[in-house]
Amino acid sequence: MKTASVLDELYAPILEPLKNVPAQISKILESSNPLIQEIAEHFFQAHGKMLRPAMTFLGAAVARPDALVSQSEKLLNLAASFEIFHAATLIHDDIIDKAELRRGLCAVNAKWGSQIAVLAGDYFHDRALVTIFESGNADVMRLFLKTAGIVCDGEIHELRRVRYYDLTEAEYFEIIYKKTASLLACVLEAGARTAGATQTESSALAEFGRHFGNAFQMIDDCLDFTANQEELGKTLGTDLAAGVLTLPLIRLLGVRQDIRAQIIELIEQSSSREHLDQLKNLIIESGAREYTFQRARESTQHALLALTDFSDSPAKQSLEKLAGYILERTK
Amino acid sequence: MKTASVLDELYAPILEPLKNVPAQISKILESSNPLIQEIAEHFFQAHGKMLRPAMTFLGAAVARPDALVSQSEKLLNLAASFEIFHAATLIHDDIIDKAELRRGLCAVNAKWGSQIAVLAGDYFHDRALVTIFESGNADVMRLFLKTAGIVCDGEIHELRRVRYYDLTEAEYFEIIYKKTASLLACVLEAGARTAGATQTESSALAEFGRHFGNAFQMIDDCLDFTANQEELGKTLGTDLAAGVLTLPLIRLLGVRQDIRAQIIELIEQSSSREHLDQLKNLIIESGAREYTFQRARESTQHALLALTDFSDSPAKQSLEKLAGYILERTK
Repeated sequence: MKTASVLDELYAPILEPLKNVPAQISKILESSNPLIQEIAEHFFQAHGKMLRPAMTFLGAAVARPDALVSQSEKLLNLAASFEIFHAATLIHDDIIDKAELRRGLCAVNAKWGSQIAVLAGDYFHDRALVTIFESGNADVMRLFLKTAGIVCDGEIHELRRVRYYDLTEAEYFEIIYKKTASLLACVLEAGARTAGATQTESSALAEFGRHFGNAFQMIDDCLDFTANQEELGKTLGTDLAAGVLTLPLIRLLGVRQDIRAQIIELIEQSSSREHLDQLKNLIIESGAREYTFQRARESTQHALLALTDFSDSPAKQSLEKLAGYILERTK
Repeated sequence: MKTASVLDELYAPILEPLKNVPAQISKILESSNPLIQEIAEHFFQAHGKMLRPAMTFLGAAVARPDALVSQSEKLLNLAASFEIFHAATLIHDDIIDKAELRRGLCAVNAKWGSQIAVLAGDYFHDRALVTIFESGNADVMRLFLKTAGIVCDGEIHELRRVRYYDLTEAEYFEIIYKKTASLLACVLEAGARTAGATQTESSALAEFGRHFGNAFQMIDDCLDFTANQEELGKTLGTDLAAGVLTLPLIRLLGVRQDIRAQIIELIEQSSSREHLDQLKNLIIESGAREYTFQRARESTQHALLALTDFSDSPAKQSLEKLAGYILERTK
């Protein structure tokens, strides 16, 4: 399965505006500082899934199908800014996780050192903010600033719980909402608001984004154990190496209390491939992986429910299919 | 010389509003996340020189003396936000410099690790932005966002030139304008604009801030070699340890080309106290320290010229005295 073409199909109703996003990203990040230019070009050589730009357009199109044309410039700037903001958080995350790979390329911290990576993330963040601010919708700016704070709070929350083996599922869900789902909710809502949607419509799309984002993160947390590293394009087990507990492990610790000490030892030594593999097997055999998938499936069901009141459209079908796709993705 | 009381005297016309800044900073950074709360309380135990909040009020008061009363709430939020933004840049700087001390306290990276410090800086930055945005002056928001980008660009520029021994004075001045003076220009201009100053008045205050900021940074760069570490409250020689060339060294390399190789060797080994002391002596004996002070004095003269068209007032006298004070400061 080639992800790019699958996504192209899922993104079909918004493929036109989406194609303009990479050029807009380059334009927004343009700088007379050659090092900034170099980092931006390196990072965006690989464009990832472009989920946040796609969701911006889809949020707009589900609410007001003609907005893709009438608000094209504003939506393009928003879509590009959200991807740049997301990139800023990834660059800072990769410093935190000491990751080597990102999207199959050398991570910024690995290539230029963590010092430069701190500032590159700051710069990307600032450029995203300026662009959203200049696109002139105060509500969207307010929403985005609030969300940026929530994302950061979530990441700090996650770090505060590093190597805390009594982390509850409830706290895990609070963390993944803050660090991942809140931004997906924000981009859908921002797209809808820019398109002129009502408060109810915007909130419904935010609701879709929240559940979709939770499901997305749960699958991501499974892939961190079970994916093929080359296919995933990032270092496996990085959460573990950083001491971050995710749902598959929380569940494993919950159902295998008889070998709790052994599991904790495997986690602490998971930098070795052998121990990581043992953990992976335990996660699969104990049903913890399947449990995580089940919770993710429930989340996507909640996401679909949030779309009930929108009339059928190609964009709505895209969102529905995306909710199915993330359950099957391998990268 | 006790700096606090000297500054209290210099800040006399704006001491009332300035006293409210620490409480406002705490309010803005308030969080239900206990780790964020802890970091904010730790960092702001020591308040530094409060130069940016002071300049915000002084910019307002020089342009419109009654603004301290009529715009008190907006100015207080701006002043606190600028200090929080400055704190965010210091926290990220200290990661970059691997600094141990900040304002006589343990640096955030040293106490919580650089991972947490990255996110704490991000969080502070976001809170500052939200507060400036909510204070409702779009011009000020635009100015601040632009400045945040310039500051970041300056810091990346500085890092790009690490261990580049052919750095010219012109490039040094470009870097210090971007990383330091631009923010001081911004806070004065933002204060003036919030007070209702004309474009000409705001620009004149920005001009003061630019020259003042350049002088401030030049003196800072001297203090990095020649200050008393306990009094300064931060680790000496951190710029050098990070490979950053500043004016005293650029000048030294310029006037002592006969021992260039030896100077470079001393710089490369400056983590040893002995080599740092040898460099310090060379900087003093060669006149490079005095040259840096002379350039800083010229900058303060330019700063004072920018104030010519404002009528005399206690606030204007404060700015004038501050320009003199920074030439004499020891911390």
